[in-house]
Amino acid sequence: MFDRSLYEKTLLDDIGEKRFNHSLRVVDKALSLSKGKDVDLEKVKIAGFLHDCAKYNEKKYLTLLRPEFIENSTIDMKSPILHAFLGAEVAEKVYNIKDREILDAIRYHTTGRENMSLLEKIIFLADGLEEGRSYPGVKKLREIAYDDLDCGLLSMLDHNIKFLLEKNAYIEDLTFKARNYLIKEKYGKS
Amino acid sequence: MFDRSLYEKTLLDDIGEKRFNHSLRVVDKALSLSKGKDVDLEKVKIAGFLHDCAKYNEKKYLTLLRPEFIENSTIDMKSPILHAFLGAEVAEKVYNIKDREILDAIRYHTTGRENMSLLEKIIFLADGLEEGRSYPGVKKLREIAYDDLDCGLLSMLDHNIKFLLEKNAYIEDLTFKARNYLIKEKYGKS
Repeated sequence: MFDRSLYEKTLLDDIGEKRFNHSLRVVDKALSLSKGKDVDLEKVKIAGFLHDCAKYNEKKYLTLLRPEFIENSTIDMKSPILHAFLGAEVAEKVYNIKDREILDAIRYHTTGRENMSLLEKIIFLADGLEEGRSYPGVKKLREIAYDDLDCGLLSMLDHNIKFLLEKNAYIEDLTFKARNYLIKEKYGKS
Repeated sequence: MFDRSLYEKTLLDDIGEKRFNHSLRVVDKALSLSKGKDVDLEKVKIAGFLHDCAKYNEKKYLTLLRPEFIENSTIDMKSPILHAFLGAEVAEKVYNIKDREILDAIRYHTTGRENMSLLEKIIFLADGLEEGRSYPGVKKLREIAYDDLDCGLLSMLDHNIKFLLEKNAYIEDLTFKARNYLIKEKYGKS
């Protein structure tokens, strides 16, 4: 059983109050999206709480857990998805989470991926839809997600892709593949 | 030397007058985009002329050239990119084009791909920007392409991706890899 009180100080010290409070709101939103769904609520709480555990601490945790990436300069320290992948490692090695589903939900919470588990979908959506978010379109996205989770996921992915297109930012393969997978499921490929 | 007059009837019979005229306009636009650039104009004319040579004739040419795909039902006959890939085969086997650059320009004229040759970029853009096109935004795209071909290419890819997002259509890997490649070249990856 994960005793959050043992880890609150570490997380708060690492990611700061603003991001910590965001994580608490993600837990709330994730639990809310979980209603009526066959998902392990304990896993939802843990994944929501720890999803950003590596944020702002990429250098510190890479040095600790994967020093070879820094030595070889093989990693893009400015990548917006680094914290998610590193977060899965941090959750495992620092917070002692061994559950694969939880670790994957943390790992893919920024990009999404093909054929996401229900837990992954809930955490991905909760991150984007938690009640502190106020970007244009978020209310509509919440409505869609509560009505149908997969529709919400597809809408969220489309929204993210459009945002990255406007910013002239790189769009990870995982994100396109996540979206294409849902399109194939829903509409067939053509 | 490619003698177009030998092939005009075949192409016109296959793809019809409307699409034939589109192909002539693509040649014009491609030549126009080629001004001041180090590209083989003969190749530009051939690739522009033949880029849609398999359109509307996918079943006929698959039966002729790749019957195994039909027998095994391994191909999506409704795919919007089939005509491009098949077109490269038709250009080679029916129109006797052996030049690899021309065949690739035909093959990738719908999706684009990573690290396109100058000829591929010109044909891709000419197809989207020929003077018969009148979709919202085309004038701006033409301006950008004439000013800077790679900027035009990126803008065209973004435009296509947005269009496919709105249509809830599958976005080919080749297309988002084409875009990401340009983003990396222009802005770096993050």
